[in-house]
Amino acid sequence: MAIIMFDLAGADPALRFSPYCWRTRMALARKGLDVETIPWRFTEKDLIAFSGQGRVPVIRDGDRVVSDSWAIAEYLEDTYPDRPGLFGGVGARAHARFVNAWADGVLLPGIARLIVRDLLDIVASKDQAYFRESREARFNMTLEAVQEGREARLPEFQASLLPVRLVLGKQPWLGGAAPSYADHIVFGTLQWPRCASRFELLAAEDPVADWRSRMLELFGGLGRHAVTV
Amino acid sequence: MAIIMFDLAGADPALRFSPYCWRTRMALARKGLDVETIPWRFTEKDLIAFSGQGRVPVIRDGDRVVSDSWAIAEYLEDTYPDRPGLFGGVGARAHARFVNAWADGVLLPGIARLIVRDLLDIVASKDQAYFRESREARFNMTLEAVQEGREARLPEFQASLLPVRLVLGKQPWLGGAAPSYADHIVFGTLQWPRCASRFELLAAEDPVADWRSRMLELFGGLGRHAVTV
Repeated sequence: MAIIMFDLAGADPALRFSPYCWRTRMALARKGLDVETIPWRFTEKDLIAFSGQGRVPVIRDGDRVVSDSWAIAEYLEDTYPDRPGLFGGVGARAHARFVNAWADGVLLPGIARLIVRDLLDIVASKDQAYFRESREARFNMTLEAVQEGREARLPEFQASLLPVRLVLGKQPWLGGAAPSYADHIVFGTLQWPRCASRFELLAAEDPVADWRSRMLELFGGLGRHAVTV
Repeated sequence: MAIIMFDLAGADPALRFSPYCWRTRMALARKGLDVETIPWRFTEKDLIAFSGQGRVPVIRDGDRVVSDSWAIAEYLEDTYPDRPGLFGGVGARAHARFVNAWADGVLLPGIARLIVRDLLDIVASKDQAYFRESREARFNMTLEAVQEGREARLPEFQASLLPVRLVLGKQPWLGGAAPSYADHIVFGTLQWPRCASRFELLAAEDPVADWRSRMLELFGGLGRHAVTV
């Protein structure tokens, strides 16, 4: 029986752009687990109330329900230990938390400041008021003001990718000789702007762009074939 | 036979403050290896010319010579696999590279902008002209100008520690249930300002400060007993 995954979608149900859901999609693919994704909108809190909280990703695996992308990755690793590994051991899992923390605390907010107004154009019409109000409260300014002047701020964002760039100067993947969940974390976060906005964040000559191209091809081109705006 | 380590020292030969040498000191202590440190000054390039480069840490282990803190950590892990581990496996080593990259690319430059003028007061007199010239060329301004207004910039630095703080909200050490070389990297980098400057960078209530206190006690209080300015 396939794992059910509630996956953030836009007005177009095929447009999937959540940075957290993408981490989970990659982890499920790495494990080779069948998944049936259910398009979910921000305001459909009732549809995932069974998970005890109001955000996606949420997975249902038989009678097990797990939310939060990190918790899902740990669940998959612990529940399916005989399938390909996500982390590469206990120590690798502990260290991957730092990558997750950097992605959540630095990368994701940095991207939001560049594309958050674009998101308003792709979310379902019933989500638009919720999206604007909740995000403007978070930033304490209008979405338009947050995004304004992004071209001039792009170099600063690209500079913030330095830790990724330094690692890629030493090894082909964040996971070392092969991709790991650390790669899924950063790649999943970058799928958010790639799918939801036409504003390109990566310079073509950046080693991070080359790495992303390689990530896009994994699992039969799962990332490459994603619908983009 | 003890491992020889060339360790950056100030005018006071007991004052050891290099962020890279501290990573190596912690790694050697974790491995339980005897070490004899040799105080070294920036301008004593001839003393480490045998290593083929001009920076510390440099270790000599019998007839093996290794420089660069990351390369030394890998050397110690591979050469002494039966002693306590630094990384926790191949995957953990690969992921620790991201912590190292963040420390080198974000943490260390952030600290430098707060204390680089203080360093001039502690380096050996023969190092002072070299130190000022080389660092002013790097920053393209005087050391005094780099450091100016640091009190106002401290909150921004403390905010940059967010990834560490987020991890410590989930687990006691960057290494998980026990410290790993990832902890040595960040701790070693923070020993630099702690030993070389009286300007306190961590807020007392910051979980990072609590973690640093715990790190200071490791290996018989190796960090705690360090000479400070």
